[in-house]
Amino acid sequence: MTEIADAAPAPLGPGEVVLAFDVGGTDTKSALVDRGGRLLGLRRTPTPLDGGRTAEAVVGLVAELAAELRAAHPDLQPVAAGLLVPGIVDAERGVGIYASNLGWHDAPIRDLAEAALGLPVAFHHDVTAASWAEHRLGAARAHDDVVVLVIGTGIAGSLILDGRPHLGGGFAGEIGHSPVAEGPRCACGARGCLETIASAGAIARRYTERSGVEVDGAREVLARAEAGDAEAREVWEAAIDALGFAVAQLAATVAPEAIVIGGGLSRAGDALFAPLASRVDERLSFHRRPLLVPARLGGDAGLLGAALIARESAAA
Amino acid sequence: MTEIADAAPAPLGPGEVVLAFDVGGTDTKSALVDRGGRLLGLRRTPTPLDGGRTAEAVVGLVAELAAELRAAHPDLQPVAAGLLVPGIVDAERGVGIYASNLGWHDAPIRDLAEAALGLPVAFHHDVTAASWAEHRLGAARAHDDVVVLVIGTGIAGSLILDGRPHLGGGFAGEIGHSPVAEGPRCACGARGCLETIASAGAIARRYTERSGVEVDGAREVLARAEAGDAEAREVWEAAIDALGFAVAQLAATVAPEAIVIGGGLSRAGDALFAPLASRVDERLSFHRRPLLVPARLGGDAGLLGAALIARESAAA
Repeated sequence: MTEIADAAPAPLGPGEVVLAFDVGGTDTKSALVDRGGRLLGLRRTPTPLDGGRTAEAVVGLVAELAAELRAAHPDLQPVAAGLLVPGIVDAERGVGIYASNLGWHDAPIRDLAEAALGLPVAFHHDVTAASWAEHRLGAARAHDDVVVLVIGTGIAGSLILDGRPHLGGGFAGEIGHSPVAEGPRCACGARGCLETIASAGAIARRYTERSGVEVDGAREVLARAEAGDAEAREVWEAAIDALGFAVAQLAATVAPEAIVIGGGLSRAGDALFAPLASRVDERLSFHRRPLLVPARLGGDAGLLGAALIARESAAA
Repeated sequence: MTEIADAAPAPLGPGEVVLAFDVGGTDTKSALVDRGGRLLGLRRTPTPLDGGRTAEAVVGLVAELAAELRAAHPDLQPVAAGLLVPGIVDAERGVGIYASNLGWHDAPIRDLAEAALGLPVAFHHDVTAASWAEHRLGAARAHDDVVVLVIGTGIAGSLILDGRPHLGGGFAGEIGHSPVAEGPRCACGARGCLETIASAGAIARRYTERSGVEVDGAREVLARAEAGDAEAREVWEAAIDALGFAVAQLAATVAPEAIVIGGGLSRAGDALFAPLASRVDERLSFHRRPLLVPARLGGDAGLLGAALIARESAAA
């Protein structure tokens, strides 16, 4: 039987003092991490969008935030910074290849940030680093082969295989853009992508398309489905079916021990996990059945991941 | 554009003298590998099936074949043996977990073989080791992230990620048993498995079901499709569609640089590779498009893989 796990969160723990930045399409989160692993001065700042110069503007903001954090904590000397960005990332070369919301192409963000901060910068993909934090500190601690799915407006993902992130040149883990059906057309240009059916955004949008009723997100669609609304039920079930299909695909090809599910939709709890586990069960036979695990680190998983990679790079 | 590659085979090359065994559901292949990497005394022997004692019978055959090879080449002293079996394999513990054709469950095959041969035995899954040979010597030499598909009676697969086999506890790479549709029911117990639509066996069977005409394999279905037979065309196109869907899934999740395709169906050449590349193209957008590469080592890929892992274990 496909099981649903429960796990307690763990703190970042002792280590070097580092800066942590998690750049999102809307906000940038920042903090200074002390020797005890506490996140000091944690705040959100709007991410500056400046067309073709957004990479430079983002690095400028990061330098400003770093200066403020250092001024506020003159007794703490960061030895490195961790910097995360969304999109397609070449972590090895330190390059943001592409990010639809931020508009950059092949931007040498790590080099720019190292010059601006005067510190070594560990640079990575946001969801990969957040997943690494779930693997090292959170829901996936017990497992070497893990897939993390973050289901919100879209669906992002990340693979940790044999205890290491599997990056595929920055292109692996795009589970939201894996095909599960013949349609609908996805904003990415492909068709039948998982996130066109099963993201929280898609669930709300598809319900409104069918019913003409505006809703406050996937949560309201679920509430309506539970109250007996047939259209809400159909949209919700289609999402669970598509997720079950994608999870079964992963079980057959990658065979993870656990699939960690985070993001807004994961807050549906049992209403998501119980039917999903049963869909996955129906689809599989001799396969290794992944444990389905709710993410544990919440919205700070990215910052914790940034801190982890900064500390690891400082120790290397 | 999804490209189709061409690559030349390479020999096994110089190294230690080892024994190589590739146990299949029907035949067992065996050879002695000399210092120059030549396969000496290569032969096929029927695999002995003995119900609950098949593991012991197979090891007995392997010991006999080893004695014959040593007797025929008294000047060559093997330092290790490579032994491959099909099914679900725990390579680390040296255990054959399950093989539908051979009937064993949790059989400690490596220990039995080491005792019988008086040599260290490198033990692995047949398709994984054959894929490793394609990665080290054959079609996938240039790439670190590779998926190998062997399309014959069924569809077997194997993942090499970041230059290492990704095993998933022996359960990874079962691409033939990943879902691509709602039906039909697969012999494995799941439904909509890729191999129920796209294996050479399925293509022949599905054509016969539709047309009532017995055919000599998928090759004949392809010939009939090319000659304008509508039912043959429908079955062939459904197979290519399903393969394109599975390849697109892999591109989104694992993002391999190359997908190596071997087995009987790969001998269709351009009639397979060209439409498959175009189906994959239609399904993808920003993804990393895998190079589609015909396997190069042919039927000896398993023995070459057995020799490679034996040499690697001797060097470790």
